[in-house]
Amino acid sequence: MVFWGIEVKPGQAFTYDCKAVPERLHITQATLGAGSSSERSVLQCVVGGKSPVFLCSLLPDKFETCPLNLEYEEDDEVSFSTVGPRSIHLSGFIEIVGDDDDFEP
Amino acid sequence: MVFWGIEVKPGQAFTYDCKAVPERLHITQATLGAGSSSERSVLQCVVGGKSPVFLCSLLPDKFETCPLNLEYEEDDEVSFSTVGPRSIHLSGFIEIVGDDDDFEP
Amino acid sequence: MVFWGIEVKPGQAFTYDCKAVPERLHITQATLGAGSSSERSVLQCVVGGKSPVFLCSLLPDKFETCPLNLEYEEDDEVSFSTVGPRSIHLSGFIEIVGDDDDFEP
Amino acid sequence: MVFWGIEVKPGQAFTYDCKAVPERLHITQATLGAGSSSERSVLQCVVGGKSPVFLCSLLPDKFETCPLNLEYEEDDEVSFSTVGPRSIHLSGFIEIVGDDDDFEP
Amino acid sequence: MVFWGIEVKPGQAFTYDCKAVPERLHITQATLGAGSSSERSVLQCVVGGKSPVFLCSLLPDKFETCPLNLEYEEDDEVSFSTVGPRSIHLSGFIEIVGDDDDFEP
Repeated sequence: MVFWGIEVKPGQAFTYDCKAVPERLHITQATLGAGSSSERSVLQCVVGGKSPVFLCSLLPDKFETCPLNLEYEEDDEVSFSTVGPRSIHLSGFIEIVGDDDDFEP
Repeated sequence: MVFWGIEVKPGQAFTYDCKAVPERLHITQATLGAGSSSERSVLQCVVGGKSPVFLCSLLPDKFETCPLNLEYEEDDEVSFSTVGPRSIHLSGFIEIVGDDDDFEP
Repeated sequence: MVFWGIEVKPGQAFTYDCKAVPERLHITQATLGAGSSSERSVLQCVVGGKSPVFLCSLLPDKFETCPLNLEYEEDDEVSFSTVGPRSIHLSGFIEIVGDDDDFEP
Repeated sequence: MVFWGIEVKPGQAFTYDCKAVPERLHITQATLGAGSSSERSVLQCVVGGKSPVFLCSLLPDKFETCPLNLEYEEDDEVSFSTVGPRSIHLSGFIEIVGDDDDFEP
Repeated sequence: MVFWGIEVKPGQAFTYDCKAVPERLHITQATLGAGSSSERSVLQCVVGGKSPVFLCSLLPDKFETCPLNLEYEEDDEVSFSTVGPRSIHLSGFIEIVGDDDDFEP
């Protein structure tokens, strides 16, 4: 397992192409980025041409971090973006497919 | 594992038929949908003809997202609905039964 | 895995006898039930003749749901009850012991 | 897996000696005990002669329960205590080492 | 599994060198340290020469502890630090690579 982390900035979707890498991505935490706006920032995810799904909603000065438990091994690209004024930091880890955690008799 | 996400809208139950698919559904997060009402929205689940069970309760501007850890491999249909004025987005992942995560000697 | 959920009502302990069933119970979420009281409701558990243990504390309009991670395969009966004015809904899943998730060479 | 729970009272450290038992302890939840003080109660842990580590901080009427994910198989004794006026209930489960969950070819 | 815990103090980054030890580190909880400032304290992580990633944000008197789910087996050093006036205690456990939890046919 290796650490994985990014900052999803307002107006800049982060796109993840699972097929390009022999890895399995686990996202385990979201945390509000720096800034002064007191409005909520929502993290959303779009897979293929489907409707956006809200993954979490962070509230400045009240509720600024939350655990997630998401895994991605998609055929389609995954796009993460924020709805709101502040960035959202995502963290987790990457499992290298075929690494020594796998059982191979 | 592939991403799974839906929006459960007020007045529109989402029904999931586990028997129709060779998959195992894991629901790992619930997040309040867009809207202006400040009343709570509760996610509930009905399996077969049993009583509804509340799965989480989301409070606008206070507590808008929470982790869940639910798995469904039912013989009966599962119906998700909201009690309250706003929709609830559910996210998680689907494990394809028989995929390369399973141990097959 | 099949869904499991109950409502623990004030004054009505819910008793679970692990020995009566070839199953393993995982409780993964607690959510405050309907009602108007603003006092806290605490979920407690008694196993055999031991002292009660508080499992979670839910606060109306502030903190109405929380994840749990409990497993029960007891020789003794397990009794769940609420301390407070409102019911608490518990949800999770049941693993059938001996099902196809187990590794059996 | 069998249920495990204790109440850690102010001024009374709870000591756990992993070597005395063929078990693996998982602590999965902390909940504030009964009382009227509105000050925070912090759970701390000391292993061997090391510095105390805060494991969680519970706030009356705001945030009274939280998930934990701790496992103990220490050579040294583990001591849990509270910093603050109220007790903290800990719950989780015990895995008997060598039980039927383990893989034994 | 053995318990692992540290206090990350303001102005003193904690550096972890995964390659120096035959271990896998799991960080599972963060808790605000003692102090009187009411400003938020953010935990951040830097791996190699990459940008810092916020792992959680703790708010005095509102939200002082949160679960994490991070694993580190890096080739690069990992550096944890706080942004804010108070220390953050991290806890979790260490899995000894090659211990009796691993499957070795």
